[in-house]
Amino acid sequence: MKAWFKSIESDPENTVYALEKVLTELTVNEDGLIPVIAQDEHTKAVLMFAWMNRESLEETLQTGKMCYWSRSRKALWRKGESSGHWQTLKTLRTDCDGDVLLAEIEQDGAACHTMRRSCFYLKFEKDQVRVVSDLSS
Amino acid sequence: MKAWFKSIESDPENTVYALEKVLTELTVNEDGLIPVIAQDEHTKAVLMFAWMNRESLEETLQTGKMCYWSRSRKALWRKGESSGHWQTLKTLRTDCDGDVLLAEIEQDGAACHTMRRSCFYLKFEKDQVRVVSDLSS
Repeated sequence: MKAWFKSIESDPENTVYALEKVLTELTVNEDGLIPVIAQDEHTKAVLMFAWMNRESLEETLQTGKMCYWSRSRKALWRKGESSGHWQTLKTLRTDCDGDVLLAEIEQDGAACHTMRRSCFYLKFEKDQVRVVSDLSS
Repeated sequence: MKAWFKSIESDPENTVYALEKVLTELTVNEDGLIPVIAQDEHTKAVLMFAWMNRESLEETLQTGKMCYWSRSRKALWRKGESSGHWQTLKTLRTDCDGDVLLAEIEQDGAACHTMRRSCFYLKFEKDQVRVVSDLSS
């Protein structure tokens, strides 16, 4: 855990830090990427999980539209550019050790490439896994 | 994306797969780890983000208590063992490419080591980041 995040953890509510400082302190992996959890602003359902690099994070903050880093294509991935299923950023958070992002978004259409609303459509049961697209069930 | 996950993506609702098959097909990183999102069963707030290896995942499924892999201590991390803040697994899901887990849990006390309910207490604003412990604000 980075010393800076340790140093701020007892700071009171509404303490503010410069954006640039936090961006610099975020922990990225060996490929320069940080994981991102995308959650539906309204239902709070977790819709997808992806990765950002510094460039895609800055673009997301500037445009308000989610831009990830595609690890398979090794390119910026402007979600919705090909599908029309854009994601509008509503709130962005990071956690106590600055190694993951949580984005509340407004989702146009399906988050998942399978056209399901959420990517998390496989639900574990006792000795099997079941296709259950509705996260509230 | 693994061929097996691609092969099942058009399967209808309530299709079931053997647990062992899915566990084998999950994608882990070069350290044998898969990311895990822990979400409050009741409020749907995202509480924390951590990692599991195969052993901790199997223990979690067997005991119903969240057991992660601590990357810093390089050991099984039975959440709550030292803090008393246990996490009881309610539902577990994976996503369309099987490279992340989503656990709905019942959280005893605080998920975060800072004693906040959720680890995601740092909220981005236009040019700053603010301490906001309440995820609904």
